[in-house]
Amino acid sequence: MAGVRQFKIAAIQVGPIARAAKREDTVKRLCGLLSKAADEGARLAVFPELTLTTFFPKWLIQSQEEVDSYFEKGDITKGPCKPLFELSKEKKIGFYLGYAELTDDGHHFNTSILVDNEGKIINKYRKVHLPGFIEPIEGIPFQQLEKRYFEYGDMGFQAVRTNPEWIDATVGMLICNDRRWPEAWRSYALQGMDLMLIGYNSVANAVGLFGDKEDKTLRQYHSDLSAKSNAYFNSCFAVSVGKCGKEEGQDLLAGSIIVDPTGRTVDQCKTEDDEVIVSEIDLDDSIIGKQKMFDFERHRRPECYTRLVEQKGTIPLPPYSPSN
Amino acid sequence: MAGVRQFKIAAIQVGPIARAAKREDTVKRLCGLLSKAADEGARLAVFPELTLTTFFPKWLIQSQEEVDSYFEKGDITKGPCKPLFELSKEKKIGFYLGYAELTDDGHHFNTSILVDNEGKIINKYRKVHLPGFIEPIEGIPFQQLEKRYFEYGDMGFQAVRTNPEWIDATVGMLICNDRRWPEAWRSYALQGMDLMLIGYNSVANAVGLFGDKEDKTLRQYHSDLSAKSNAYFNSCFAVSVGKCGKEEGQDLLAGSIIVDPTGRTVDQCKTEDDEVIVSEIDLDDSIIGKQKMFDFERHRRPECYTRLVEQKGTIPLPPYSPSN
Repeated sequence: MAGVRQFKIAAIQVGPIARAAKREDTVKRLCGLLSKAADEGARLAVFPELTLTTFFPKWLIQSQEEVDSYFEKGDITKGPCKPLFELSKEKKIGFYLGYAELTDDGHHFNTSILVDNEGKIINKYRKVHLPGFIEPIEGIPFQQLEKRYFEYGDMGFQAVRTNPEWIDATVGMLICNDRRWPEAWRSYALQGMDLMLIGYNSVANAVGLFGDKEDKTLRQYHSDLSAKSNAYFNSCFAVSVGKCGKEEGQDLLAGSIIVDPTGRTVDQCKTEDDEVIVSEIDLDDSIIGKQKMFDFERHRRPECYTRLVEQKGTIPLPPYSPSN
Repeated sequence: MAGVRQFKIAAIQVGPIARAAKREDTVKRLCGLLSKAADEGARLAVFPELTLTTFFPKWLIQSQEEVDSYFEKGDITKGPCKPLFELSKEKKIGFYLGYAELTDDGHHFNTSILVDNEGKIINKYRKVHLPGFIEPIEGIPFQQLEKRYFEYGDMGFQAVRTNPEWIDATVGMLICNDRRWPEAWRSYALQGMDLMLIGYNSVANAVGLFGDKEDKTLRQYHSDLSAKSNAYFNSCFAVSVGKCGKEEGQDLLAGSIIVDPTGRTVDQCKTEDDEVIVSEIDLDDSIIGKQKMFDFERHRRPECYTRLVEQKGTIPLPPYSPSN
């Protein structure tokens, strides 16, 4: 049997989640959205980063107990999120879910899972490119403390091939800031990735964090540009989905987007709240790019790329000297 | 003395060059354009890839003597191009020039040079990402035989710091197809590059080469997307300049563009012929991105990028197995 290459995929954009929201209520809300995506025929749906709670890294939280309250402990399929996995099996819809993971041995990760259409976790990813800071910055309205609350992902970029009777894809996962790092996309594409799933919580006005000129329009442009260009460079589809709206006073980017392998928009959310968009995609549209312009075997020159792994930060050239 | 960080830069788009055009006449035409850029106050001007001749890789040329006639031999500052170097010194304008280089020991490269404002070559780059084929494809109107006529660049990606009294920049150079490869940009950015110069000859309708859906609009979008996204990811200015128009029956992309470090257009050519655009840029605008979002030292994770250099082509994952 030929695998399912052409299917409907959903971006499930999620509006603000209050600090006081109960996990059970949030999961119920997410189930409603997942159910809607399934009813519209989607075989796979993509939720945002840290979907289950408010985006807590905006605050300096002194109590580790409170920090941990934003994390999922133990088997996520059996806790408060259980209804999502049951719904997946019932409605035969897979999903990407971002959440804060606290492992049994006490490690904290910004994590996403890929769940198949039988409610089974088939891949996990832990965010590699944590943005922000360990220590708070004085005098700004909201912090970005991901480097404080999370450890760097320890699983690398491991793609997964899915059951072709569900969808016949090689899936990569990234989380938020990762999407701005071409190295991350390429690491997946070198495994044949043809579908990239991304969740994000991106602040729309990063006052004090990224410079005064980064307004909401520019930040949305950057979010779109990152998905479109990297989908093109790696000839893959990309579904990039945000938690959005005014959350506890902080404005988050909306504009969740489905992008094709030529880097063009298939569909994009129009609201700043809960919104489900469903598009039919054909993964075979990724083949021509992989065979022509971005045939890595014919065109890449890894012997010229050694700086990318041999150094982390910039090593500036020595100052100009007339004798050079 | 503080270096010159704020200055005018020119993109010199060049219209079609006939197969029969004499090198002396072409150089004269280029001198006119360079002179115009200088008169408008530009300190640096960017010419296209293979600026001195028609884009000959569109043909299968059996005679090596004819192939070699498109190449520059010996000291380029002393041959037919001499007037360009004299003009540079006279008008105090530097330039990027792409040309076909035949070395004294018989090697063929697709090359660009950076010339300072005294007519002196201060850096050279040889194209790494040669597109196209070694053997012609049957039954298509125009070939893409760069892999036949050129050897892969053997100089890597070596940036250069310029005399700060002229312009105080760390300059990278790429050629055409290179701009679609994020590894190339990053290799320069890791040296502190804040200004990327690119020349191109990109076919507008690559019939038979990249798939029927790649029309002129889409190819222009990809050209722009490549410059904008990589300028953003590396927080640098980029000047990407084409040879354009209907050249010997082949339609080449125009749309030469100057991009800022936020990935936005500063200015873009509007014609499909010889056209000089001049924009004032401030290289200090590249600093904030390098210090915040794209502070490589804080945010890159090279230990996760090893696939980028350890493999050249895609190594697909094994097919799905239920036991996985």
